This record gives sequence, C-alpha cells and structure tokens, in this order.
Amino acid sequence: MQLLDQSVDDSVFTQHESEVRSYCRSWPTVFTRASGSWLTDTSGREYLDFFAGAGSLNYGHNNPVMKSALLDYISDDGITHGLDMATVAKGKFIEAFTQKILEPRGLDYKIQFPGPTGTNAVEAALKLARKVTGRTSIISFTNAFHGMTLGSLSVTGNSMKRAGAGIPLVHATPMPFDNYFGGVVEDFAWFERVLDDSGSGLNRPAAVIVETVQGEGGVNVARPEWLRALSDLCERRDILLIVDDVQMGCGRTGEFFSFEDAGIKPDIVTLSKSISGYGLPLALTLLKPELDVWTPGEHNGTFRGNNPAFVTGTSTIDHFWSDDALTRDVHAKGDRIHTVFSELCETYQGISTRGRGMVQGLVFDESTAAGKVCAQSFEAGLLAETSGPSDEVVKLLPPLTISHEDLDRGLAILSDSVKEVIG
Amino acid sequence: MQLLDQSVDDSVFTQHESEVRSYCRSWPTVFTRASGSWLTDTSGREYLDFFAGAGSLNYGHNNPVMKSALLDYISDDGITHGLDMATVAKGKFIEAFTQKILEPRGLDYKIQFPGPTGTNAVEAALKLARKVTGRTSIISFTNAFHGMTLGSLSVTGNSMKRAGAGIPLVHATPMPFDNYFGGVVEDFAWFERVLDDSGSGLNRPAAVIVETVQGEGGVNVARPEWLRALSDLCERRDILLIVDDVQMGCGRTGEFFSFEDAGIKPDIVTLSKSISGYGLPLALTLLKPELDVWTPGEHNGTFRGNNPAFVTGTSTIDHFWSDDALTRDVHAKGDRIHTVFSELCETYQGISTRGRGMVQGLVFDESTAAGKVCAQSFEAGLLAETSGPSDEVVKLLPPLTISHEDLDRGLAILSDSVKEVIG
Amino acid sequence: MQLLDQSVDDSVFTQHESEVRSYCRSWPTVFTRASGSWLTDTSGREYLDFFAGAGSLNYGHNNPVMKSALLDYISDDGITHGLDMATVAKGKFIEAFTQKILEPRGLDYKIQFPGPTGTNAVEAALKLARKVTGRTSIISFTNAFHGMTLGSLSVTGNSMKRAGAGIPLVHATPMPFDNYFGGVVEDFAWFERVLDDSGSGLNRPAAVIVETVQGEGGVNVARPEWLRALSDLCERRDILLIVDDVQMGCGRTGEFFSFEDAGIKPDIVTLSKSISGYGLPLALTLLKPELDVWTPGEHNGTFRGNNPAFVTGTSTIDHFWSDDALTRDVHAKGDRIHTVFSELCETYQGISTRGRGMVQGLVFDESTAAGKVCAQSFEAGLLAETSGPSDEVVKLLPPLTISHEDLDRGLAILSDSVKEVIG
Amino acid sequence: MQLLDQSVDDSVFTQHESEVRSYCRSWPTVFTRASGSWLTDTSGREYLDFFAGAGSLNYGHNNPVMKSALLDYISDDGITHGLDMATVAKGKFIEAFTQKILEPRGLDYKIQFPGPTGTNAVEAALKLARKVTGRTSIISFTNAFHGMTLGSLSVTGNSMKRAGAGIPLVHATPMPFDNYFGGVVEDFAWFERVLDDSGSGLNRPAAVIVETVQGEGGVNVARPEWLRALSDLCERRDILLIVDDVQMGCGRTGEFFSFEDAGIKPDIVTLSKSISGYGLPLALTLLKPELDVWTPGEHNGTFRGNNPAFVTGTSTIDHFWSDDALTRDVHAKGDRIHTVFSELCETYQGISTRGRGMVQGLVFDESTAAGKVCAQSFEAGLLAETSGPSDEVVKLLPPLTISHEDLDRGLAILSDSVKEVIG
Repeated sequence: MQLLDQSVDDSVFTQHESEVRSYCRSWPTVFTRASGSWLTDTSGREYLDFFAGAGSLNYGHNNPVMKSALLDYISDDGITHGLDMATVAKGKFIEAFTQKILEPRGLDYKIQFPGPTGTNAVEAALKLARKVTGRTSIISFTNAFHGMTLGSLSVTGNSMKRAGAGIPLVHATPMPFDNYFGGVVEDFAWFERVLDDSGSGLNRPAAVIVETVQGEGGVNVARPEWLRALSDLCERRDILLIVDDVQMGCGRTGEFFSFEDAGIKPDIVTLSKSISGYGLPLALTLLKPELDVWTPGEHNGTFRGNNPAFVTGTSTIDHFWSDDALTRDVHAKGDRIHTVFSELCETYQGISTRGRGMVQGLVFDESTAAGKVCAQSFEAGLLAETSGPSDEVVKLLPPLTISHEDLDRGLAILSDSVKEVIG
Repeated sequence: MQLLDQSVDDSVFTQHESEVRSYCRSWPTVFTRASGSWLTDTSGREYLDFFAGAGSLNYGHNNPVMKSALLDYISDDGITHGLDMATVAKGKFIEAFTQKILEPRGLDYKIQFPGPTGTNAVEAALKLARKVTGRTSIISFTNAFHGMTLGSLSVTGNSMKRAGAGIPLVHATPMPFDNYFGGVVEDFAWFERVLDDSGSGLNRPAAVIVETVQGEGGVNVARPEWLRALSDLCERRDILLIVDDVQMGCGRTGEFFSFEDAGIKPDIVTLSKSISGYGLPLALTLLKPELDVWTPGEHNGTFRGNNPAFVTGTSTIDHFWSDDALTRDVHAKGDRIHTVFSELCETYQGISTRGRGMVQGLVFDESTAAGKVCAQSFEAGLLAETSGPSDEVVKLLPPLTISHEDLDRGLAILSDSVKEVIG
Repeated sequence: MQLLDQSVDDSVFTQHESEVRSYCRSWPTVFTRASGSWLTDTSGREYLDFFAGAGSLNYGHNNPVMKSALLDYISDDGITHGLDMATVAKGKFIEAFTQKILEPRGLDYKIQFPGPTGTNAVEAALKLARKVTGRTSIISFTNAFHGMTLGSLSVTGNSMKRAGAGIPLVHATPMPFDNYFGGVVEDFAWFERVLDDSGSGLNRPAAVIVETVQGEGGVNVARPEWLRALSDLCERRDILLIVDDVQMGCGRTGEFFSFEDAGIKPDIVTLSKSISGYGLPLALTLLKPELDVWTPGEHNGTFRGNNPAFVTGTSTIDHFWSDDALTRDVHAKGDRIHTVFSELCETYQGISTRGRGMVQGLVFDESTAAGKVCAQSFEAGLLAETSGPSDEVVKLLPPLTISHEDLDRGLAILSDSVKEVIG
Repeated sequence: MQLLDQSVDDSVFTQHESEVRSYCRSWPTVFTRASGSWLTDTSGREYLDFFAGAGSLNYGHNNPVMKSALLDYISDDGITHGLDMATVAKGKFIEAFTQKILEPRGLDYKIQFPGPTGTNAVEAALKLARKVTGRTSIISFTNAFHGMTLGSLSVTGNSMKRAGAGIPLVHATPMPFDNYFGGVVEDFAWFERVLDDSGSGLNRPAAVIVETVQGEGGVNVARPEWLRALSDLCERRDILLIVDDVQMGCGRTGEFFSFEDAGIKPDIVTLSKSISGYGLPLALTLLKPELDVWTPGEHNGTFRGNNPAFVTGTSTIDHFWSDDALTRDVHAKGDRIHTVFSELCETYQGISTRGRGMVQGLVFDESTAAGKVCAQSFEAGLLAETSGPSDEVVKLLPPLTISHEDLDRGLAILSDSVKEVIG
C-alpha cells in the first residue's frame, strides 16, 4: 500500500512525541495529502486551510509550478545539500532575487543564508547589529515574536515562551508598538524621551527589531507613518533598524516586502517561511552592503544551502513576482475578508477586526471565544488559529492564491462559527 | 536549457552574497549535480566528496532509495509543510525511529522536533535542562561546537565564532575534554573537585553537553571509559547529560548513536545532519520521558514538520538500520582510513592521526600544512576540509556508503597531497 | 604644629590621587576644620555649606551634642569595630531607632546593618527582594541614583556612571518617574500596561526601587498621590516596593522618612548618609519581618558594626526626633528657600524651581549656567553643587539645623550669583 | 549611668535585627568596652580576641596612639565627612602612605578612595580593569572571598553567599588556587592551556583577582613562586593582576603588603580593614598610573572621605611602618603560633596546620570539630572563628600587637579546647 494511504494510530504521537507539540492539539486528526488550499486526512476528509503553515504556504500547498521544478531538479540529481557552496541552484536564486525583487524596489542588500529557519535569520541579524555598532542592547516591541533560540527569544514578548529559556532574558528592552495605548499617547513619546535623556537608564541600543504586522502578537498593524517615524528616529540616532519580515514578507500584505508601503529601507531584513514558496526550509538575512563586516564563517550552519528550496524559491519569484498581479489580488482578497469581518463586527457585540492584506484578525472581547470559534470551524472543515497574548484573536492567513470561491466558503464557515459561539 | 546545465557567473556570489560565506572559498567552483560520493561542477568536472555535507550526507548524495521515496511523495502531493501537525509521514517516521532505532538499543526517549537544524535541537536541549533543574549554568568542553544561535554559541569553544555574538557569552563554563592534557592529568580531576567544593565558585550546573568525537574541534575522540565516567559523575550529582550527536550520530562512528559503544544512556540527545538521510533539514531532540515537562508550544518553530525529510528519514532507517551491515562496513572503512593515515604518519614527520569509525583526522604540527593539503586535494578532484582551533587537522567525513574503490582513490589523492606539501 | 593648622600642597592630590575625584575640582581649596554650617580652609577662609556632605550632614558639621557623646565613647574605650557582634552601642541604637522612629510611625521593620554605605544597603535590598520572590528583574526609574557597586549601578540612570561598569548592565528596566512627560501622559500608563500584558516582553519584576525625591537626578519630586499609586500597583501585583531613602531620609524633606507624607509603607527601606548624624559611615536596610528570609551570614561585611556611628546615631535620635520641632523647622526653612527661588524665577528668564523640604533645586534652561552659578557662589564663599542629567540644576542641601541668618546669607550669595551669570 | 555601663537585653537583637547576623551567634554576649587584645562584656567578663575584627584590628582595639590622635582631631573640629574634597587629614594620609609605604617598596600607585569598605575597593578594581581592557570576564580562584556586592560576589567562591545574589552570577570563571590538587597537578596547567587554546571557550579575561592567603576560604596560602608565576602569566598575556589585600595587607603576613615577599607588583591592589588602624571604615584601590583612565565622578560614593579614618591611618603609618620592627615581630609571633599548632598536629590525629605570618589555621578532618573548638574556647574566654568551605578550619587573626603573654595564654586555651574536643 502506498505510504500516503496508510493509517497512523494517534498513540504514535501521544506516546512518543514530546508534550511540546501544539497545533496538532487544535486539529486532532492525521493529515496525509495537500493541494492548493486543501488538506486531506487519512479518513479522506478535506479541510480548507486558512492558516497556510503559519504563513509558510503563501502560494498554497504543493503548487504545481514549483512542484514541477522541484521534481525535475530531484530527478536530475541536482545538488540537494550544499552547505554554503556555490551551486547553480543557489546562483539562479540569487540572480532572481536580486533582479526581480531587490532591484525593481531600489533596494541594495547583500544576502546572507543564515540557516533555514526564521530564528536563524533573526539571530544573524542581532549578532551583526551588535558587531557593527559595538553595543549590546536591542529594542523590541510589546507582543513581538521573533523565534525560540536564545537571541530571538530575548526580543520576543510572550511570557510563557520567555519562561522556557530557563535563564533571565536580558539585553533587550520592550517599547510600545503602534497604537499600544489606543492612540492616546503620542508615538515614540517614551522611546525618544529615554533615548535623549542621558540619565534615563536605558542602555543605548544597537538596533530596533520590528514586525510591520505582529502576527503571533495578535494581528497588530503598524501604520505606515509610524514605521516611517521609527525609521527616521533610528536614522537620526544611528541605531540600526531590523524589519523581521519572516511572516509578513513574500506578499502576505500585498507587496513583496511588508515595509514597501511605508517607503522605508531597513538596514537589515529577515525573510523565511514563504521564501522557498513550497514550504521547504529556507531563510535569508538581507543587509546593507556597508554592514557586511562578517568574518568568513563567523555565522555558519549545516543547512544554509537547502538547494531544493532555492529551486522552488526561484520558481516562485519567476512565476509570481514578475508583475504586480499577485499584489493586486492580495489587496482585493484582503478587502473581501475585511468586508466580511466588518459585517460580523456590526452584527455581533464584543468583536472587532484588524489586519492588512491577507493577514486579518477577528478580536474577541471575551478571549476564550476565539478558541471556540476555531474549534467550531475545524469541525466544519476549516483550519484557523488564534493568536494574541490571551489567544483572543482568530488570525487568518489563507494562501494568497486561494480561489475566490474557497475564500468565501471559508469565510462562511467562520461566520457560522462566530454565530454559533457568540451569536 | 535545463537549469542544471546553465552556467552561473562567480560574481553572482561575490557581489550579492555576504562575506560570511566560507566553504565556497576553499572550493572555488560552481557545483550543479551530485550522486553518491561525487559532485559535478558546471564545467563537467567531477569531485570525490570526502566531506559529505559536514556529515549531513552519510548515505551519499541523492541516494536512489530515498530519492525514489521522495519523488513518489512529492508527486503524490504528500503534505510538504506540516508545522507540528500529525501527518502520515511524521507518524511513519516516529514508528520507524522508535521501533528500529530506539527499542533495539533499549533506549526509551520521547522525540521533540525542535526546528530543522542542529542548533535548534541544542537550544531546545539547553532550555529543557534548565527548566527541569531550575539551574542556569551549563558545562561544556574545550573545543566544543554546538551551533551559532545564542544558546548554542555560549557552549561552543571557538573564539572567532564566540566573538560574533556581540555580547558576553555567559552561563557556561568549559571543562577539559578527554586527553586535553595529553593524559598527564587524571580525568575529571578538576571538574569533580570544583563540583564537590562548595567554595569553588562554580555555579552548580543544570547539565553537561558533550560530543563523543569533536568534529569541528579537531577530531578529538573521547574514550568510552571517559564517557562512562562522565555519565557516572553526572548521575551521582544529579546533573543532566546531553550528548550532542548532530555530527557523530546516524552511523558516523559505526553504531547509530556514537555513545552506544560506551554503554551510556544520556538524558537528552540531539540529532540532525544525516537524520533525514538525504541532506534535507531535520533535527530531533530526544529526552527521557520523565524530563518531558514542556508546556505545549513552549518551544516552537515553523519548519518542525519538514515532511519530505520524514519520508527520506524513514526510508533511511528501513534501508540501512534494519541490520548491522552498515555498522560493520563503517568499522571496516574506518580501519582502512586509519591504516593509510598511520602509514602517512610513519612516512612523514610532523603528522599524527586520530579518529573513530569514518571520522578521521590527520593532524599537522605545522598548522598551515593542513589547509595546503586540502587545497592540493581540491586541485586533484577531492573535497576535504580542515578543522581544529588552528585549522591544523584534515578532517575526513566520507559518505558511509562510499565504495571501497572510491575510498582508496580519495585516500591516494590525499596521500599525494600530503607528499606534495610536507614530503 | 597641630595637624589641622598644617598646610598641604595641592600637588599631593593631583599627583597621587586618582583622576576619579570630582567634588574637589569644583571647590579647589584644602579644607581643615568645620563646625555647624561652616567649613574653614587652610588659609583660614570660611565657607557656608549648602551641600552638607551630599545630605550626610543634616545636623551640620561636628554637632556639639553628638560630638560630646562621641568623645566620651572613644575616651572610655567603647568598642570601635564590632563586626556584627552584640554591643551596648548597637543595642542602644536599635532601641532608640525602634522606639522613637519606627513605633511612633506605625512601622514594623527588622533592621539589617548591611555595611556602612548606601550602596551596600541597596545591594542588600535587591538581593533580598530577588531571594524572596524568586524573580530577577528590578524596575527602576528614569534619572534614579542608587550607587556605584554593580547591583546598585544597574538600577542607576546616569549613562556616564553606567558606562563605568565595563559590562552590560542587565536585570533592570527603567520606567518614567513622576511627571517625566510634563503631565501629559497618565501616571503608570506604560508600567501598568506592560505588567498586565503577558506578551509585553517585560520580565516580571521582583521589586520596584524608587527615591521619593531624586537628588542626583535633578531634584525631581514625586507627588504623594504618585507614590501611593505606585505602592498600590506593587501591592496588587505582588511586587516588592523598595524606597531608597539614603539621601532623602533622616528629615531632609521634613518628616524622618520621606515617604511618610504619602502615607505608604514600603516593603524595604534603605537609609544611610545622615543616619549616624555626624558624617560617620553607617547604613541600614529595613525590611518587613515576613521578608527576613536571610540565612545567617548570607550578606556580610567588615564594617557593619561601626560602633562610634551607633553612638552618634542614637544621640541624633534622642536629640532631634523626640518631638516634631525639627520637622516643623525644616518645612519653614524649605518654604523660605522656595520663596527666594520663586522670586528668582520671576525676576529672570530661563529658570524654574522644584523641591521639597530642604532639598531645593534651581533649574536652568541653559544647562551650563548652573555650573557657573555654583562656581560664582564658591568664589563668594558658598558651597553648592549641580545635579541632573545635564548638570542643569543647582541643588541645595543645607544642614537642616542651619540658622535663619545663615540660610538667608547663603541665599543672598546664590541670588547674586544667578544675577551675575544670567542677569 | 554611663552608656558603656548600661545593660542591653538580648531580645533587642533577636527581635529587631535581621536573621542575617552571624558572628554574634558564635559569641552570645553583649560587649561593651575593648582595649588592646581584650574585650569586656556587660557582665564585666573579659575575652581575649584572636579574631581582631576579621583582620580590621591589626593594632588591637583602641590603640592609645591612634586614640589620642583621633580625640584631638574630633575635639578640634577637624572635618569629619569630606566626600572627596581635599582636606588636611586626607592630604597628610596620602603623603604618609606615598612616602612611607609606597616609595620605600618601589611601588608607584595612584590612590583611589572608592568608598570605605573592601567590597567597594574590589568593585572599583573590577570596573577599572574592564574599562582599561575593554573585556568583561574576570578570573577568580577557588575559595576566593572578595565581598558581598554584586561585582565582588561574582568573584567569590562560597556557594551559600553566591546564592544570596538571587541572579545568576556571571562574567567570572574560577581557576584552581595554589595547591588545589595537593601538588599533583602542575601549577596553571589548566589556566594556561585554556588561555592559549583559541577553541577553549574561555572568554579572554580582563583581569585575574587573587588573595595571597585566602582567609575566608580556609587559610589557603599561595607560595611565592606560584604568585610569581601568576604574575608572569598575566604580564605575558596582557591580563591585569589584581591583588585583593583587604584582609592580608597592613602587615598581617609580616610585610605591609602580603605580596612583597613574592617580589611581584600587581597592577591593582585593594586595601581596607586595618588601613585606618583603628577599626574605622576606610578602603583604598591602588592603581598603576597608566591605568588611571577614570572619568571624574565615574565611581563615587558618600563616605570616600572618612577623615577620622585618615587621621588614625596616618598615625598608624607613622607609628608602625617607619621601621621594620613590626614586621619582625609578626614573623616571630607567627612562628610561635605555628610551633604550637605543629605540636597539636603531632599530638592529635585528624588535624593539620597552614598559615603565614599571623594568619594561621588549624584544619580538622572532621569539619564540625572546628566549630566545637571555637565554642569551647569562647567558654574559656577566647574569641576565635572558623573558615573554609565546610567551616573546617579554626582561623587565628590575633592583633599583630598582642603581647607574648597574651598570645601564649590564648594558644593555651585553644590547645585545651582541641584536647577537649578531639583528644
């Protein structure tokens, strides 16, 4: 019997896998195949995926364009594992990324492959910022999420995850993200004041690290003017600006980079999740050329050269980022979600909505409702997840390539679930 | 023209990729295809690979058994990216790993997928050890290498890499690795003394992290009796023992785990590199069941569920680890390398050898000679690399599956290079 | 010739003493004798002292009441150095402090003698707060000053002094002191928000450490309602409140403790400077009985039992704190200073005033003016010093026991100096 | 009734003083007067003092020479509290110290008054070493004791005291003190090896801090040749050498500085305890002139200018250090103690002895015996204390000025106590 048609007993996971597993608890079934916006479990039941690998599957599952390129590459015995060696697959990826992503946007970055995960990209960014400036302290934002290794965790807000470190997390100071006080306090009032005051006790920071939209933090959207003001503030004070675009990059907000809208040019940018376009591990740290002070080998890692991921990544760039069709599509679908969510907010008490492009959140005053809505949606065949400090937000991250029909189908399931839970 | 037959200009890498790149500087060509023990560059030249992805390609490049399973899985639209969801591919991997690797060896571990890189596995191990014990300090060993993210870097010895952190690396204290004093000082004299002395100033450690053979550190081999004594010492004092088997596991030293030989059962084990068997990113943290105190989601990551890697990993286990043929083969080939190296040591002044199984080192008194030997070998079509604090060791990590002919061919090239450089 | 009538060449200090010396640069003469509010230099010139040992001489120099007790004690061969042994001198001090200071104020503290300096008292307070709560992080305030040893320095704001640590100062996060934003931002908006938000990234603090009036920070006065709100906030969230009363205690603001006014009862209080009443080194850490979890000897120090300081301290308590005469006197003199300062502010542009009791500041918009005023005053025979992050404040700390004539004389000199500098 | 003739109830201390008190538990009485080598309690009972304020009373209690100078100074209204102002008392102290202590020994140090306690002197030394070198890490030794504030505590060995920090103590690595392995391991084998090995994982240290005799650590005596080798090692590798002479300086080992014997010239020296000669709080940090890179005010403190202590300190220097009589006397008395101790070791099983000059220890195999001997001695009218990681050493620190009769009397009591306990 084919592998994919075999059954697997639930006890395999509960007995042998660590208690640390999480998503599988919300979606208690065993998945086997996937295509586009749909997953299938071993019983043959299909699920519409509004989570898309936490943003790693912006182009859907097993997109046929990349799949074809990937199968060819593997069949032809292209290099699979390449450390940081020069390979055709890597070279073509760099060419495509430089010519089709960076140059048209007037961005001049050198590319570092820091290891194939977002947290690796963040660790490299923080190390480089400290090396360049000779300072140790980093400014992060309330409800930020940047990863689970020690450097990234120290700039992450979630207290449960922070406690996992087992040591005091230091060298980072949180500042209020945009709209943290509901608009009543002037932007950067506190941050600028303590930077300017030599007696404030704030260690002068090497860098600021920011997400333009905080996905894990509860779909908190920074306004373009806030991002510009942050960028100006960093520039005036010689502090490096790192945009962590691991989840919001690669088109999630419409444009390739989520900061394009704001017209800023960060000093360092991290990318991962959808950069391979096919769900294969890959990550990039982009740095302004003048910051490239790395000693050869100073940051290394075994899987920096995940060549199959370069192949699908190049294919993604060629296919989706040669014109602005996807961008327009994302804005249109984002508007559609927003419209549905706004109607829900008008219909029901105790919910509100926020989001940008195709990351949209439904915020419940009564935080447990969000989890119930997701559970109810799962029963009805839709995968969605919560986020926010109290898991009070239903966060939607559908594939950018989802059909309008599927999008509406999913939104209908979600609306029904909301009705069921709080209606 | 097919992707793999295209040329890529060297300037793509020198202009657009960060200065941090390293291996590609030793092997200045552009690779395109690979099979078994051989790589091919864009000019069609073939290279015999005695480095095997720094130990990530124990079964050679693009092994046809795994390749076939991988192509089937991708063609059939098996789940590619699965976060930590239950999938058939993951379930089968857990079954195979539990039944064919753990159980026959009398090992009872729960499996954590901490993110697909070795450093992720180490970070998870350190976090868990601290959480379980409530202590913060870790004992590492001289010339250890555990990874580049902040937690792993703090237990890594190399001063150049440590400097990259940009902050003082704390919470770790180095102890002498086996034979650090050339045998004149009793094992653990210093470590036991400071542990027992309540006035020593050593913070009581949560865990000890150790490699059984230090690959990056210069092919330093711990004796089984030293490992047993270390294990006893940890057990008597309620300190957790972590074996980092990222590079030395998966058969590199003969047995699946490199610590089997010594008859010890570490509390936590990290695996990565060759665990997928095909060079695809994957990592495991194995933990004794009583240590599994993780809160769900307390350590997460986007690419924990790299399902294609589960598929090739399962195939690897089925194919190579159902009997002891590979183990015997590795011992035989290791002996062969050792024989050739011993002859070289007898023939030439200023070199010595050390190693275990199919990780073998040729140590040069004059440290620069090691690099020259590798450069000369590359000219002759062989990939080999240096390691050790002064890059004074030529470190061999050939595919475990290399043919005897190819092994001899490579050893002949290496011997010639040694002759050329110091003969 | 008598010691005190001898001359000392300036080069003794410039050649042999470290460059770290500071006050002596502002007051370039060699002092020899002192009495009440006056110092005399070796040339016989007299100076009116409006700095009073930075608050260590609240009862003036060599107050005859304490002097007499001290001479008797020394003549009679009372214990001078007593480690932490029980002595009559210490017992009498504890009795007086308990019966005349604590009990009438409804305060129930145990007394720790942590070493005879303010920074020792702060270090003990921070250690105890961490031990009691099991947490590591401390909240300090912008422009705080708590001392120069590593624990105290980490909660001190001044960036020049922080840089002296030579290591990153961690485990402390600054929050805005009262009125930091000129009243436009609600009190504790930021602090409460990040405490309540489990995703804020703020490590949950063991304690808050606060000065009721920040002397070194620029005579910043916390309002009683702000202190009460801070106390409430700490109590509601199980965070310990430490009031550092080293400079503002012992009557400087009128009442013995500077926090009495606000009606709060801190968990831990530090006292030093004027606690011996005679300028002799002594410090106390007061702790609520339920917090007294110290292991015997867990915090020790050679000069905890400075018995001559106990003798003068007891004498001070008996003489000055048996009724409320001194308190009323301080309020009256504080009002007098405030009146004169207010007139100056009305007369001249670019100055403002703030203060409480007998710590009063004159704030110059043009920061260098403050130093010039002090220099001019010194020329005219008055000792005064600047404080604040830019040394923009002339800070007055006259002896509480200064005569009205001397107070007016000094204020006249100061007024003339202001006129000279900015008139 | 005179203060010193009053009684004090024990409950004053047990009810109102913190549980942290320690010595008073070993010597459960209330002391009132003291003179020379004797203390008197409120019942009139006299005790011979073989502890001398933990080394703060090298010249005995209330030495009449210093007493007279002190009474004169106070009577004449000499400056008591002088911050860091230039005063006649300070100038005379600097002159005496420079001319009679430093110059005759060929030492060229600048003097910093860092605050009046040993831990302040150590904190200043560590800060300066880090500032000068730009490095953060410090090497300390097993069983070191340097003080209780956070910087000093991090280089202190005792685990109970370290636990009091409440945060992980970092930036310091312990190395084995002389003879830590009973002579079987070569000196500095481990330290030099990890310094020279760029892969050792040891952060390159700013400084080494060492006591020549570890008093608190159990009267561990470093040999002169070991100190010289340490000094050489530091010089060759550009690491600063700090000798903490707080307890062993001021003649305790015979010479003024305890390192004179070894013929070394440390980069930084700390002094406190007996430097005032009278038990008054005072501390010095001595630094080579080229290290004096302090910014004015970068390390400050309220009681740096404890002028009465300058007066007695100067008197001490004039009286005791104008010739070598005291040094010869200390050596003679040290020999006497050693002789008696050696006889005890010959007479009884399970004890050994070590020491230098007038710091001598009696080491008990059965650690609890040491405490019993001290308790027994106290009953017989002798004050002595234990030290060492298990309190297994009876540590003698008699006044250097003790009469031969009193010395013998005390030794006789001690010998009887030993007989009683283990005879």
